[in-house]
Amino acid sequence: MELYSYFRSSAAYRVRIALNLKGLQYDYRAVHLLKDGGQQLAPQYCALNPNALVPALVDGDAVLTQSLAIVEYLEETHPQPPLLPSDALGRARVRAIAQTIACDIHPLNNLRVLKYLKHELKVSEEAKNAWYKHWVELGLAGVEAMLAGAPHTGRFCHGDAPTLADLCLVPQLANARRFGCDLSAMPTLARIEAACAELPAFQQAAPAAQPDAE
Amino acid sequence: MELYSYFRSSAAYRVRIALNLKGLQYDYRAVHLLKDGGQQLAPQYCALNPNALVPALVDGDAVLTQSLAIVEYLEETHPQPPLLPSDALGRARVRAIAQTIACDIHPLNNLRVLKYLKHELKVSEEAKNAWYKHWVELGLAGVEAMLAGAPHTGRFCHGDAPTLADLCLVPQLANARRFGCDLSAMPTLARIEAACAELPAFQQAAPAAQPDAE
Repeated sequence: MELYSYFRSSAAYRVRIALNLKGLQYDYRAVHLLKDGGQQLAPQYCALNPNALVPALVDGDAVLTQSLAIVEYLEETHPQPPLLPSDALGRARVRAIAQTIACDIHPLNNLRVLKYLKHELKVSEEAKNAWYKHWVELGLAGVEAMLAGAPHTGRFCHGDAPTLADLCLVPQLANARRFGCDLSAMPTLARIEAACAELPAFQQAAPAAQPDAE
Repeated sequence: MELYSYFRSSAAYRVRIALNLKGLQYDYRAVHLLKDGGQQLAPQYCALNPNALVPALVDGDAVLTQSLAIVEYLEETHPQPPLLPSDALGRARVRAIAQTIACDIHPLNNLRVLKYLKHELKVSEEAKNAWYKHWVELGLAGVEAMLAGAPHTGRFCHGDAPTLADLCLVPQLANARRFGCDLSAMPTLARIEAACAELPAFQQAAPAAQPDAE
């Protein structure tokens, strides 16, 4: 398999963790989102992914896009170890946590949106950072409320093994820290992040460990 | 089951279509996003969904949130008729189309984001509308590219029966029209939308057909 990735992309980071947890080897294809006016916009990459976003996963003749769809595909084709619980309500809970991050937080703060705020709407650096923090802190407060004290929350977001929810949470928290968000009201998230950080699959997927890290 | 919904919410609209396609009865619980300072922010609703967003689905003792997670749950608990293909690559394709809409387009244009642009960033009405159109037109152009001429595209987004992809597409197109987006470069999307519009499950899920429609 080949993974088209950018070291700082939190969507690509999710897929890297999933590949590592499942013990799947892959070739890393770096797509630099800032060089050459954005390598994701090059015709060669858009032929793979018309949405001009990372990640994309090539598996044989197939090209897969959208990080959560890719993880579900890996889960179906390589079921061990499972990244989703075995019961429908558990799966719904894990997917809802993952989607709260992937739909409600991350899309508001990715590179193309921050660029639009700066270049099209001419907002100040201060207002851009306030935007970033607003959506991250609001969204993660919701995730904390979903997790804190919930009977299914364990060492990880759902039980005592990592799931799709954890592999969305860890990259989002890394981004939040990079932008100086206040995470003091989210002790459950911090505790789960620390548990994930002990696992080689998470360590090896971290931005700083990628071949294109700067 | 009880569905907490707002007639204009495209995320709730997706779930309404899924419930209708599967022939499931439900009680409609209206959550008005504009009245009373936003009924989704009321403590009673936040106890159900700490993210203060619609939809939420109550099934017995369980509360489910996030529209795509809810549809996957309905798919697992009420498999007929299927809303996902039977093969892993097909499911990955349908989920990727759905997530392109649910992650890359819709979150940038929902009510709370438009309010932030207006009240916090003080952008003009014109700039706010340009923002809306930019993300919708860019995102839907990507969806058109995923669908046009693709071997698995049929009468609907994937084959000749509606899937999770169609029930994300139709609400997004309805929103796009409401805001005057230019959809002339998306003939495949328009053709699929017309096919969906013939089905009672889609007709009965439309905003205008809801008890809280204005």
